[in-house]
Amino acid sequence: MASIPKIYTIQEVESVISEPQFAPELINAIQEGFVAYSRGQFNAAPIQTMGAPPMAPFVNVENYCAQTCVKSGYITGGTHYVIKVASGGYPHPNGGLMQLYSQQTGKFEMLLLDDGLLTELRTAAVGAVAARMLAPNLSDKAACIGMIGTGTQARYQLQYLAYVTDCRKVRVWGRTEQNITKFIKDMASEGWNISAVESPQHLLQSPDDDWYCPLIVTTTSSRVPLLQLIEDNRRKRPLHITCIGSDSTGKLELDPKLVASADLLVADSRIQTKERGEFEDAIKQDLVSLEQVMELGELALNQDSWRTSDNDSRLTIFDSSGVAVQDCIIASMFAQRVNTKSGMNDE
Amino acid sequence: MASIPKIYTIQEVESVISEPQFAPELINAIQEGFVAYSRGQFNAAPIQTMGAPPMAPFVNVENYCAQTCVKSGYITGGTHYVIKVASGGYPHPNGGLMQLYSQQTGKFEMLLLDDGLLTELRTAAVGAVAARMLAPNLSDKAACIGMIGTGTQARYQLQYLAYVTDCRKVRVWGRTEQNITKFIKDMASEGWNISAVESPQHLLQSPDDDWYCPLIVTTTSSRVPLLQLIEDNRRKRPLHITCIGSDSTGKLELDPKLVASADLLVADSRIQTKERGEFEDAIKQDLVSLEQVMELGELALNQDSWRTSDNDSRLTIFDSSGVAVQDCIIASMFAQRVNTKSGMNDE
Repeated sequence: MASIPKIYTIQEVESVISEPQFAPELINAIQEGFVAYSRGQFNAAPIQTMGAPPMAPFVNVENYCAQTCVKSGYITGGTHYVIKVASGGYPHPNGGLMQLYSQQTGKFEMLLLDDGLLTELRTAAVGAVAARMLAPNLSDKAACIGMIGTGTQARYQLQYLAYVTDCRKVRVWGRTEQNITKFIKDMASEGWNISAVESPQHLLQSPDDDWYCPLIVTTTSSRVPLLQLIEDNRRKRPLHITCIGSDSTGKLELDPKLVASADLLVADSRIQTKERGEFEDAIKQDLVSLEQVMELGELALNQDSWRTSDNDSRLTIFDSSGVAVQDCIIASMFAQRVNTKSGMNDE
Repeated sequence: MASIPKIYTIQEVESVISEPQFAPELINAIQEGFVAYSRGQFNAAPIQTMGAPPMAPFVNVENYCAQTCVKSGYITGGTHYVIKVASGGYPHPNGGLMQLYSQQTGKFEMLLLDDGLLTELRTAAVGAVAARMLAPNLSDKAACIGMIGTGTQARYQLQYLAYVTDCRKVRVWGRTEQNITKFIKDMASEGWNISAVESPQHLLQSPDDDWYCPLIVTTTSSRVPLLQLIEDNRRKRPLHITCIGSDSTGKLELDPKLVASADLLVADSRIQTKERGEFEDAIKQDLVSLEQVMELGELALNQDSWRTSDNDSRLTIFDSSGVAVQDCIIASMFAQRVNTKSGMNDE
């Protein structure tokens, strides 16, 4: 254990993850990871959160809320166990690193100073997995991807969705004009046909036949619902919503009544969605039961239960709150790639 | 956070910890650390244990029991938070490393590849703290230090005791002739006047007036009591026992009746001694109550309650199960020393 781990800087990490086959391989690997997770083959240690109540703040200054989470785990029979150290909160930018240790030898093999980049990508990958399984009608001429949120994760979501659909039309809503303008400009330069909508609800209501969003992806840190139930049942076409943003207690992006109206609720982790996911409020209000929620890994195993045709008008919702198995998958994939490239064989 | 931490190899760590003032400074710092701990100024994250039930083994081979613990924490108002990764169990040797992150910036500053050495030393230091507070009569001409156990930690205990007492006489018991012979040879070469006893109990019974053990230190991984109560009350002289070895559920070195006969029970951590310390069985058998157990940090704050004279015949017992505050203290002290030496100023 005492040997020096190989260290990868953010520049080296960026170079590996930009290789052409990285993203599509990651999408498949993340799907397999969730199958292992739902089969009980992922071993997650309790999360260590420092700097947040009930612990003392790191620095006793008003508004200071920097904190650090340590997430550790491993896949049964996998190559590595992974320790991820993620930090964020005012006044520091979000950051993070991943550590890989051999399950065979216990040796600290690699330190990835990725600054949270791998977390962004493994989150983008799960959005692509869910869209591939559940989003209907994306090949429809009028189809658009509806984006709620214009931050870094929104960008990665689109980049990764490009691997699972040919749809290149996007409608976006954001909190400020400035954010929206910048997002549209940046995404247009990456080849997306993109324009803004007035409100999140417009994405649901499909105001004309020229565009229609069969897939909506939310990536905000909202604490109030951004999408409401359409009471008069005007939504006649199928829809899938992927919720990325709500990942801690109190955050939500969907009206609990909209959640309750869904035909299929899917979560990355059933246990987490109850505590800090998008379905938290609907469950607390007894509008849905936790037993109704299917896990992504279960869905991947049970292909019969997927959307059967593009003509069904069902609403499906996927909630991602982020699971350590994703960290384990992306870190192990990174390790395999750099080891293969360097001709290394650690056996 | 993404900058490369300074890395210290085991050789570099050894060089720093061998500096003449390191050990006595550490003993004082560890005492201060326990004061902070007992005052509620240490923030300990839940321990992450991987590779052990209920998790899957890292490798599915018979007798394989390698596991890894991640212990994290920080002192309120301190310089760093520390993440310690310790691994051990068949077929791997024990190992470990410590990571220091700035509480001010979140930056990963140092990676100490100490291979568990700093854990040995912070454990030795707490033995010295307890002996300084509680061991009677060590200046008596006949006084010896009684050692039960002949492993690595037994050696460090003696090395650190040398900073708090002038006593250089030792009586030792170990599991095998071979271990005892080697221990005696090694310790004699370090200047100790050392010989073996037939059984642990001999250390308690002081068979003649030429030697008498006012301090006994246990460092075994025993699961059966090694020291029994002397029923007929022959022990007329004061005694302090420091128990280092028992640090997980099921391990014990003292007969619960001997524990119950003590006049003062002290633990590094009250909460831990109940779950995985030397007083576990005595508490379970209702021979003592947890409320009777004083913490080392409380004792350090409340000097009145210490042993009042070398003539009192009281029995005191200190149980160390190991607390993350010790890791934090030794890692921070290491950081301060190397930063001072290199003329660094991280402000």
